[in-house]
Amino acid sequence: MCVRNNEQLSSAHVGEKMIRSLARLFVVPTLFCSFGFAQNAWTPKEINDMRDIRDAALSSDYGYQELSYLTDSIGPRLTGSAQYNAAADYVAAEMRKLGLEVTLEKATVPHWVRRNESGELVTYPGQANHFPQKIVLTALGHSVGTPADGVTAEVVVVNNSDELHALGDKVQGKIVLFNAKYDDRLRDAGYSFDAYGDAVRYRGIGPAEAAKLGAVGALVRSVGSADYRLPHTGLTLVDPKGKNVPAAAVSAEDADLLARLTKRGPVQMKLVLNTEMLEPVTGYNVIADLKGSEHPDEYVIVSGHLDSWDLGTGAIDDGAGVAIAMQAVETIHRLNLHPKRTIRFVAWVDEEGGISGALQYAKDYPAAKHFGTIESDTGAGHPIGYITDSSDEAFKVLAPIAPLLEEMGVVVNRTGEEAGADISPLSWAGVPGFAPLMDSRKYFDYHHTAADTLDKVDPKELRENGALVGVLAYGLANCAKTLPRIAKPVPDWMK
Amino acid sequence: MCVRNNEQLSSAHVGEKMIRSLARLFVVPTLFCSFGFAQNAWTPKEINDMRDIRDAALSSDYGYQELSYLTDSIGPRLTGSAQYNAAADYVAAEMRKLGLEVTLEKATVPHWVRRNESGELVTYPGQANHFPQKIVLTALGHSVGTPADGVTAEVVVVNNSDELHALGDKVQGKIVLFNAKYDDRLRDAGYSFDAYGDAVRYRGIGPAEAAKLGAVGALVRSVGSADYRLPHTGLTLVDPKGKNVPAAAVSAEDADLLARLTKRGPVQMKLVLNTEMLEPVTGYNVIADLKGSEHPDEYVIVSGHLDSWDLGTGAIDDGAGVAIAMQAVETIHRLNLHPKRTIRFVAWVDEEGGISGALQYAKDYPAAKHFGTIESDTGAGHPIGYITDSSDEAFKVLAPIAPLLEEMGVVVNRTGEEAGADISPLSWAGVPGFAPLMDSRKYFDYHHTAADTLDKVDPKELRENGALVGVLAYGLANCAKTLPRIAKPVPDWMK
Repeated sequence: MCVRNNEQLSSAHVGEKMIRSLARLFVVPTLFCSFGFAQNAWTPKEINDMRDIRDAALSSDYGYQELSYLTDSIGPRLTGSAQYNAAADYVAAEMRKLGLEVTLEKATVPHWVRRNESGELVTYPGQANHFPQKIVLTALGHSVGTPADGVTAEVVVVNNSDELHALGDKVQGKIVLFNAKYDDRLRDAGYSFDAYGDAVRYRGIGPAEAAKLGAVGALVRSVGSADYRLPHTGLTLVDPKGKNVPAAAVSAEDADLLARLTKRGPVQMKLVLNTEMLEPVTGYNVIADLKGSEHPDEYVIVSGHLDSWDLGTGAIDDGAGVAIAMQAVETIHRLNLHPKRTIRFVAWVDEEGGISGALQYAKDYPAAKHFGTIESDTGAGHPIGYITDSSDEAFKVLAPIAPLLEEMGVVVNRTGEEAGADISPLSWAGVPGFAPLMDSRKYFDYHHTAADTLDKVDPKELRENGALVGVLAYGLANCAKTLPRIAKPVPDWMK
Repeated sequence: MCVRNNEQLSSAHVGEKMIRSLARLFVVPTLFCSFGFAQNAWTPKEINDMRDIRDAALSSDYGYQELSYLTDSIGPRLTGSAQYNAAADYVAAEMRKLGLEVTLEKATVPHWVRRNESGELVTYPGQANHFPQKIVLTALGHSVGTPADGVTAEVVVVNNSDELHALGDKVQGKIVLFNAKYDDRLRDAGYSFDAYGDAVRYRGIGPAEAAKLGAVGALVRSVGSADYRLPHTGLTLVDPKGKNVPAAAVSAEDADLLARLTKRGPVQMKLVLNTEMLEPVTGYNVIADLKGSEHPDEYVIVSGHLDSWDLGTGAIDDGAGVAIAMQAVETIHRLNLHPKRTIRFVAWVDEEGGISGALQYAKDYPAAKHFGTIESDTGAGHPIGYITDSSDEAFKVLAPIAPLLEEMGVVVNRTGEEAGADISPLSWAGVPGFAPLMDSRKYFDYHHTAADTLDKVDPKELRENGALVGVLAYGLANCAKTLPRIAKPVPDWMK
């Protein structure tokens, strides 16, 4: 998942807040028993159907095979790329094989491309024979490029915005490195997303802050906890009307190197980011409906985002989410179950680049027609629970399902602030959103890096998430009770 | 360290064997008490001096500061490069600052250079819109290059030589991938070097085997246990008279990808390795003598190798070994101690490319003048013991030192087959060789990769090794007893 990070788009931080709250879920498990008012939300047969869905999904390799194909045979699926479109065609074809009603729905999406990129220290304390030293880096998503032969400037290192602003116009003509560290202690305690949220803000707004002070480039320390000289990309804020500077993430090791060297003396760095924002293109949400038997025009969405960053093959972010959703609908279909409401599978386009697919969807389909939404966008770790962006009342309605889930280790229920970036536009309008709550302690070792590849997904854990989402989707589609609908403040950038 | 790997150079496997025996040391600690015949190997004052050396080294940052400079300010130190020479000049200057007698001794060394390199799948099962998919790889050291625009061929995957030979001439015109896996279970059990030895042989001899069968390129699965899409370089066998093919290591993830895709259908790969073996150049062993007060023409060597592979900055392999040796002599000098025999610091050139520096040294200095040698070339993990390539008799002589070392956690003594690649030419002639025995479970996560950087070294553990080597060097230099001298078979490739 991305964490959108336009400071003006402060709702971009919705994602971060949600994510922070996720981590807290590790701490306070809330086990529900059935409450009187929810006892007849499902018939005994429907409860049995959900048990069957769970068990069938737990023993199915369908989702993993789909994920294998998406990552191995198609590879990275950057919004706007030919690979993205191939993936959309592939997923649509797979859904048609199941007999679902499939549409590829258009959205105008950004088309950013990464070409060559490099960094090197041109002069630095102790340098031998004028030889440069390599810096391992990668351009941030949507970053403007440098001139073809790069920009060369002195590097200044700051740990936070306060230090940047204390320097003031001393950063003019310089390349600013934001050296905010990912907090491994938070991760070790199960708060991976808190650690991420704290570290990632400079990826989003740092370059713009540096540009305002006259910097000529911006670097951020790669977000995450790996120490394998691994650069971590992700969206950065680009203001179409303001001043932008080329922006890249450097590996943690190189960030430390720059911090040490700049204390010894001046460091001149050459930064080459050959990137380009091309004209917007048409992208596609893949929509596939398992038609409702009683309320075909009422929807329960199961979803993940099909686009990925381009360095790895987008296995954990978010091929896994798409595969989990595919597993859920395939299982329900295979068991020949007919949900009362339509279960709508969605593979979203452009979550990473600004949820343009989800925004288009929210324009095209009235929120009122949606009973509930699910998105899986935190990898494929063992699900310890699930969250809603609605309220505890939702869990009370869903209480009869809890024993089914507890038997597979899903024991934590909690309300969060956002269940998924793509389902958030519907959530603003009050549609209850849900998401698996996974063990994500390894997630930020690989997320947004070249190492986001198939091997990072455990097939068993992927199945567990497919089972959870399948049960939840069928439960929502057949729920005899209504769920609380709580509209959320629409963020400023949407107005 | 390298593990030399010319099959004809079967003594190249001396290193591997030594290394395997190292791991076994974890299992059978052998605690020595003083034996009668060794009781007067040192005076009580000398024992006290060694305690002082230990304690002074354990509280000194000298070695770490030197390592910081070598890695941060000079960076990679590939044999034949300007950076190597700068490092040699720097170390020589540092040794002169201590008042040691310093010489830069010449050796003719290989001069191999890596330029651009890339891999991509040109066609593969499920491919979208003819788009290539990236393969993360790095040329193996000394590999011949491809034509400038690369070589494109079908990939065949084998797990071992038997599978290769079973294919026979079916590999003609193909690129062969040797997909031998590093055994994490061995590593977890403390047998890192056994796991390495088992996996690394194809890096050395695989390309030559594939070339003999008519292959046009060779790939090996990166050796090591990291799953961060990290390619691992190292020496490969190049036969100046025979047929050679371009050879690279692919990341573990990409090796798995190739194995999966080739099962689904034909995979065509484009391999670009722009490398070149230039004319040999002059390299330098840095030699610095702390002159002996009684036997100035008898030597005890303390050493590490100053050259490194070019992807990282050579912190664990083997900047650490050089820093440990620097720490040892600096501590003895700082305490104003005057060893009876000369303690000779050596920073070796070209361990990675074939120990040409060590071979030159063995030509220039008679083995008979050497009382003992120490090399540290397994990183900087906590030393749990030390080894000798001599015999248990050596440990009996050294028994009075054991209590000093036990107090710092150095409790394991064991005889191995090779204590260090650079000191092996002297060992063949019977000079007892020694090496710290370190906890190396993380070593092959970073070794020979871009992630071999300063942060991988724990300053405290580096100090522990400096203390161990300092005590041992002073002990050997002042030892009143002789050590057993056991000549070893000179390997065929030396004859």
